[in-house]
Amino acid sequence: MPEVAIVGAGQTRFGDFPDRGVKELFAEAYQETLASVDRGMDPADIQAAYIGCLSAGGGFQLGQLAPLLTSYVGLPDIPSLRVENACASGGYALVAAICAVASGRYDLVLAAGVEKMRDASANRARYWLGVSGDTEYERLAGLTFAGIYATMARRYMEEYALKREHLALVAVKNHAHGAQNPKAQFQRQVDVDTVLRGPEVASPLGVWDCCSTTDGAACVLVASARVARSFTDRPVYVMGWGAASDHLAIHDRARITSLRATVSACRQAYQQAGVGPQDLDLAEVHDCFTIAEIMAYSDLGLCEEGRNAALLESGATRLGGSIPVNVSGGLKAKGHPLGATGIGMACEIFWQLRGQAELPSRQVKDAQIALSHNVGGSGGSAVVVVYRGG
Amino acid sequence: MPEVAIVGAGQTRFGDFPDRGVKELFAEAYQETLASVDRGMDPADIQAAYIGCLSAGGGFQLGQLAPLLTSYVGLPDIPSLRVENACASGGYALVAAICAVASGRYDLVLAAGVEKMRDASANRARYWLGVSGDTEYERLAGLTFAGIYATMARRYMEEYALKREHLALVAVKNHAHGAQNPKAQFQRQVDVDTVLRGPEVASPLGVWDCCSTTDGAACVLVASARVARSFTDRPVYVMGWGAASDHLAIHDRARITSLRATVSACRQAYQQAGVGPQDLDLAEVHDCFTIAEIMAYSDLGLCEEGRNAALLESGATRLGGSIPVNVSGGLKAKGHPLGATGIGMACEIFWQLRGQAELPSRQVKDAQIALSHNVGGSGGSAVVVVYRGG
Repeated sequence: MPEVAIVGAGQTRFGDFPDRGVKELFAEAYQETLASVDRGMDPADIQAAYIGCLSAGGGFQLGQLAPLLTSYVGLPDIPSLRVENACASGGYALVAAICAVASGRYDLVLAAGVEKMRDASANRARYWLGVSGDTEYERLAGLTFAGIYATMARRYMEEYALKREHLALVAVKNHAHGAQNPKAQFQRQVDVDTVLRGPEVASPLGVWDCCSTTDGAACVLVASARVARSFTDRPVYVMGWGAASDHLAIHDRARITSLRATVSACRQAYQQAGVGPQDLDLAEVHDCFTIAEIMAYSDLGLCEEGRNAALLESGATRLGGSIPVNVSGGLKAKGHPLGATGIGMACEIFWQLRGQAELPSRQVKDAQIALSHNVGGSGGSAVVVVYRGG
Repeated sequence: MPEVAIVGAGQTRFGDFPDRGVKELFAEAYQETLASVDRGMDPADIQAAYIGCLSAGGGFQLGQLAPLLTSYVGLPDIPSLRVENACASGGYALVAAICAVASGRYDLVLAAGVEKMRDASANRARYWLGVSGDTEYERLAGLTFAGIYATMARRYMEEYALKREHLALVAVKNHAHGAQNPKAQFQRQVDVDTVLRGPEVASPLGVWDCCSTTDGAACVLVASARVARSFTDRPVYVMGWGAASDHLAIHDRARITSLRATVSACRQAYQQAGVGPQDLDLAEVHDCFTIAEIMAYSDLGLCEEGRNAALLESGATRLGGSIPVNVSGGLKAKGHPLGATGIGMACEIFWQLRGQAELPSRQVKDAQIALSHNVGGSGGSAVVVVYRGG
């Protein structure tokens, strides 16, 4: 495939914004994206848009959200498409944009994600979080998303040397990272005791093991290699990507201590990129629950299976470690606005690979190669992208 | 862009299927697609799926419908993505699949569409049909989809020599076509008097001017030119395509007697294809309301603007005419299962360009070049594809 690059990125803070709708959130991320282009750009150069969103099904705009959003920011003519794969909607929007540019059809397209969850009622928010499992066999039986991941966690603890405290360490690490990220929903540290004493959600997962409901939007500009350097001297190149699926219902899967879709997507991405996990300087990983990050370590090849808890304990995945994971705070502390999450990961990597983290203390030193990992639901779909600085 | 081709197609009958869910409908279309491949094929050769669906937002499976469907038919691993642009979801799924193949990433992908509308309550069905306009300015003000197209029709009658009877002629023509199509929802003829005497929906549109609510699914296999002939000696090639958007709310548009998104998508498609409207042997056109087909005649270049009623009266757009439009019956008689519609158009064209219409009487003689035109909502998005027989 022809090489493509990211030449601009923008993201709202992720959080709770009762005074702003989905249009306003998208517009803020879009304007920041335009402003991020080093040599400036004419918005008329944007030829198409791919926008990830899940909850548009909820009635605020069921159909054609994508052209509604692009027309709101002054791009009423370009083809604009909504892409939906639950929590991986953003990641799938990004790879659809990459394909469109690689096909030769377009030289510059927008990949975006947006979600408005906080002004949904508690019932409605629970509904969103349940609907990406298998409705017939999981949701209608009362199995929540926290319940699904708790089942995985219990099985994982049974099979491997994983203790409840290890789960807590993921939350502690990612909140420590989020505390330094001005774009994060939760900018405060938490200690192991607090996590362990938090209200139980689905044993062994407590409230601090679960990501939150979040409002937010994020955009990146995807360009052909041919034009990328007309926008910036520092494009971030897509070295490789992979995407894959799995059975939605966990009872259909051969195993539940590994996400097969992640393993497959990751293999494809490394193969196309010609690199391996040892080459990564950082990774943004789908930690919707603390157990998800732990499982991802081996699924992404950062460690051998079963060595996940040891990798975490070693500090390697902390800022300053050999392979920092979720320096943004991750879904856990940065927040998880479903469709925006996968694009937000690409934004974080764009900034990190260009040395642009807001605080020196949260900049990964000399970062050159990075990976993003975005999961739909409980692993029904996954997207992995590998990037390098320009 | 590298050339791509369609090598297989399948579609359920469009209609009212209370005993079958979205999975069963998709599976039927998929199995027919596999069976349609002249030299046979191994389903394991399918590398990705792009599935158009609008109403998945309604709760039967809000998130990750696409991998749920592909895993149901025995493809649990491939990346599978839902694409949504209201009634143009199918058309956008098709062009996303075309881009993915043209990018060089895949050699064979599935483009599909599916919708289940008939078992929604009447309120819910009205809801679906209202939600693809601008929610804040149209739906919440009580403007229905029929109301929007009725507004266009009134304006059109004011500006041009269009009479109520012309609208009726579209219904009569498309029902005559649908009467010969075993895949159509309505397989019966209707006469002008019946149309004119039908209950009013939104003046001047009566019930016979409106498409119906429909269940259905459709699939096509999109292949690279490199592998197409390993599946069949008669691939149907994609000569060109275009996609574009417009403001959703009609009050934001400069005109409402033409769909700007259609005009732009069509211009792109002809330009890439290197052909013009005079080269077409048939067209499948988005006739969600009778006025929509009339407006499409000039938007697609089949006649000059203002000559639309004359083109219709001349019989040119009937089977046997110089440019038959909607020989399938169109949305009007074949039915309009939202996300499946754009893919169903590609199926019809696949069969017509291969001389495979079920009845000789509904086969367009020596058809070689054809066009499909799929609109989202009231023109907020549009996709046009031009095809040639192999």
